[in-house]
Amino acid sequence: MTITGLALATLTTPAFADGVIDNANGYTLNDKGDLVRFDGLLIDDKGRVSRLLQKGDRRPEKLDFRLDAQGRTIIPGLIDAHGHVMDLGQVALSLDLSATNSLAEAQAALVKYAADRPTPPWIGGGGWNQERWKLGRFPTAADIDAVTPGRPVVLSRVDGHALLANSAAMAAAGINAKTKDPAGGRIERDAKGNPTGVFVDAAQKLITDVVPAPLPRDRDAMLAKAQEILLGYGITSTADMGTTSDDWLVMRRAGDAGRLRVRITSYAHGIDTLLAVAGTGPTPWLYDDRLRMIGVKLYADGALGSRGAWLKAPYADAPNNRGIQFLDDAKLRNLGSRAAMDGFQVAIHAIGDAANQQALDAIDELANTYKGDRRWRIEHAQIVDPVDIPRFGKNGTVASMQPVHQTSDRLMAEARLGPARLAGAYAWKAMIDAGSPLAFGSDYPVESPNPFPALAAAISRTGPDGQPVGGWHPEQAITMTQAFRAFTADAAHAGFAEGKVGVLTPGHLADFLILDRDIFEAGAPAIQQARPLETWIGGKRVWVAK
Amino acid sequence: MTITGLALATLTTPAFADGVIDNANGYTLNDKGDLVRFDGLLIDDKGRVSRLLQKGDRRPEKLDFRLDAQGRTIIPGLIDAHGHVMDLGQVALSLDLSATNSLAEAQAALVKYAADRPTPPWIGGGGWNQERWKLGRFPTAADIDAVTPGRPVVLSRVDGHALLANSAAMAAAGINAKTKDPAGGRIERDAKGNPTGVFVDAAQKLITDVVPAPLPRDRDAMLAKAQEILLGYGITSTADMGTTSDDWLVMRRAGDAGRLRVRITSYAHGIDTLLAVAGTGPTPWLYDDRLRMIGVKLYADGALGSRGAWLKAPYADAPNNRGIQFLDDAKLRNLGSRAAMDGFQVAIHAIGDAANQQALDAIDELANTYKGDRRWRIEHAQIVDPVDIPRFGKNGTVASMQPVHQTSDRLMAEARLGPARLAGAYAWKAMIDAGSPLAFGSDYPVESPNPFPALAAAISRTGPDGQPVGGWHPEQAITMTQAFRAFTADAAHAGFAEGKVGVLTPGHLADFLILDRDIFEAGAPAIQQARPLETWIGGKRVWVAK
Repeated sequence: MTITGLALATLTTPAFADGVIDNANGYTLNDKGDLVRFDGLLIDDKGRVSRLLQKGDRRPEKLDFRLDAQGRTIIPGLIDAHGHVMDLGQVALSLDLSATNSLAEAQAALVKYAADRPTPPWIGGGGWNQERWKLGRFPTAADIDAVTPGRPVVLSRVDGHALLANSAAMAAAGINAKTKDPAGGRIERDAKGNPTGVFVDAAQKLITDVVPAPLPRDRDAMLAKAQEILLGYGITSTADMGTTSDDWLVMRRAGDAGRLRVRITSYAHGIDTLLAVAGTGPTPWLYDDRLRMIGVKLYADGALGSRGAWLKAPYADAPNNRGIQFLDDAKLRNLGSRAAMDGFQVAIHAIGDAANQQALDAIDELANTYKGDRRWRIEHAQIVDPVDIPRFGKNGTVASMQPVHQTSDRLMAEARLGPARLAGAYAWKAMIDAGSPLAFGSDYPVESPNPFPALAAAISRTGPDGQPVGGWHPEQAITMTQAFRAFTADAAHAGFAEGKVGVLTPGHLADFLILDRDIFEAGAPAIQQARPLETWIGGKRVWVAK
Repeated sequence: MTITGLALATLTTPAFADGVIDNANGYTLNDKGDLVRFDGLLIDDKGRVSRLLQKGDRRPEKLDFRLDAQGRTIIPGLIDAHGHVMDLGQVALSLDLSATNSLAEAQAALVKYAADRPTPPWIGGGGWNQERWKLGRFPTAADIDAVTPGRPVVLSRVDGHALLANSAAMAAAGINAKTKDPAGGRIERDAKGNPTGVFVDAAQKLITDVVPAPLPRDRDAMLAKAQEILLGYGITSTADMGTTSDDWLVMRRAGDAGRLRVRITSYAHGIDTLLAVAGTGPTPWLYDDRLRMIGVKLYADGALGSRGAWLKAPYADAPNNRGIQFLDDAKLRNLGSRAAMDGFQVAIHAIGDAANQQALDAIDELANTYKGDRRWRIEHAQIVDPVDIPRFGKNGTVASMQPVHQTSDRLMAEARLGPARLAGAYAWKAMIDAGSPLAFGSDYPVESPNPFPALAAAISRTGPDGQPVGGWHPEQAITMTQAFRAFTADAAHAGFAEGKVGVLTPGHLADFLILDRDIFEAGAPAIQQARPLETWIGGKRVWVAK
């Protein structure tokens, strides 16, 4: 794309300005939740929408700026209800080997990355896959030592279940032939028993424990990078699911320096962080509605791929395994209670059907004590027993789900669960039918934060490859308006941000996107390819496609 | 006192207002550092001094408020260059037994304190002294169990070298007859070897390790209490020497909620905290100049009373002991370098003469690498070898000293050092003569933050009891203007806050005190008793004597 921003007629240039975005093909939900159209957007000097204009409505004469959208599609800024902001930046700034097709390509990428970044000494990255490389073996430390002598290098395998360390990294970790395999992990070894450089599952920790923490400037760069990526995909607000104290301090630093661009609703990484940071209740919105800590992220189980999701019956592909229950019932309730007693929101990660049942049970009990509008959240709600789905309609429970997990994970889910236990898998329509507000997100950086493939998946149950034809369990596909609502009004509701963001009716912050196509008139394949041309936050243009 | 604020004629009541404080007996240093007088203080709508008025100067007619000071003395708000904000609040909110004269009195105080505070369950406090109680023995757990059944109680001895725990606290810590004395500590025991409840020196940690961390609301209350105390003593700005991440988060919470009143310049508790919080450089001034993290506190040694101060020659009262060197030379330099490289200020705690020499050596080396206006600080500079005093005049090194330590500690210092090694002890005048900017503080809560006894000590070298007559090493007494400068302009300079606070010349924040007497016309005994009637910050009255 070579567009560098639509012509903006600026009559004066104050810090805040009244203006109009005109001649738009505009869509928003209205305050009743219906999809409505607009032709122009009047913005006040506080960066809020003051009026939606239709064709023929008289435009005010005295304005500080006018933008002619030239008939392009405008929608509210999209909201990712479940992401990991600092991780997104960290991954984006590390070495990405996922597109390399051979060891030689990976070595070349490593050489270039190391040359571009003389500091810090440690090099991190990931995405390697010896199958894709057609290597016929795991790579070894020696493969890397040859190209990055001296600097420690640590590279995750594409699935996150193994990492490759070079000799410098192994030396820093004190790894040698005498190092024993830890419980749940394996060190790859040569015929003489010497570690070759690959550490599987729990053995990865032997290395990761000695990787230095990022420097402050690296953390600042991660946050900046994450925001740039999000804005480029049209994400103007996001939940940060599991903010650590260190993450929070980086965000505050950015806010203090005027470098917060995306609106972040933070869920603390556990109760201790919640109490240390927010203390006696949710923080106010800080930095012109850019940052707020509102609640806590708790974990009921692990993930499906690694069989950490906690199931009611054993895995189809591991008959003695039901996954991992992270917390006993009382502990989950007590943690939820500790947060709810001070008015904090509770978001529970639950992927397996047993974990979802436990989370729903906990919410039933918590809702009995903590009345009012609590918006209990279940994160992922990935594999739910159909008998439990109606329970999502109780207590105002929010189903916080990620459409792209369905298209990425469907084959793996079939392997883990077998065909008979998928009726409540990625069951978006059933959640809506149950009356649960459905909030969409991406779980970035696990998946890309790009919301357009997610919208396409939501209406089609097909992936970017168009597979499977007709959609995977197509009875769970939803309408475009429903999918749009889950990325806008209902994602705002899920984070107590309604009235501020999610829709473009008067009084809301003027967060909006100018798109390269009309996503309401396009089919799934075209929606997948949609991209913002411009991203605006609070009535200001903050990102323009290059 | 029953004064509840001088009559304030408010013509209108905007959030910010132009106004005048009139008919004052005003003192401030001018921009050249000389003491000058004023009769009125004109304040602009940003809360800054716009003009000093003399008698006969014409007063503006259009003002939002006028205060008739009725001839009372007005001085700039005082600055404590070395305190511990959260500790001040914590101590003030815990049980204070320092005034009790018998075990029975202490038991009664405990009963009342426990009744007033049903939560949290643990009760903490200190100040007991079995000598003062004429008990003839240490108190025991049983003495407390009798009056606070069930709730764990932990009480420090007045010197901080022992603590008394009741049975509930010992049970929580798993203490029993089998518990061994740790290195450097002793558990008091009865004839059968059962712990009696008193834990000496390093043994205190057995108990303190299990005391729950304060709840968020308790931390918030500590900060609120500390600010109330400081304002009541006329401290409008303070350095916080050793801010932890948790402390910082409490301060941010207060700032976000508009509850920060005192201006706090924060020095992080070590490099890790500095980098996590402030990251790549000092924070900006936050919350209308109420909070800033500017540097790091490092420790070269311990304290004199416990013989932790690091001396060049052995203690006079412990011939085999030279105290404790906390860091080797390289480590101290490296920590200082890590801070200075990103523009952070370095404050080094140094009490003994060896520690002061080491700090000066480190500063010499650091100043060689990190040029410019760095304001290296030595905190306490308590016992300095006279040959090293001239070195304080180099590199812009600030001597951050606490006058009341001299009056409180003089007998102990004589015991520790003997009479021949006191020429450089609490040597305020020698520091000024050497050309070192002298910044005064209190080290609260070690001493009271009340600056008026400190001003009295500074000019008299006598304590509140008038002892010793003629002053202790009176050659180190300084003038009232010098002492005043160390609590105002030079304390501001020590924290890079000149231009904002410390003086009342035009452009500075209107932080000032209305006093109950003229401290420039009073002798030391009267200065000791001086108290603010009102404390103003940024042109607003924030505290009034009851």
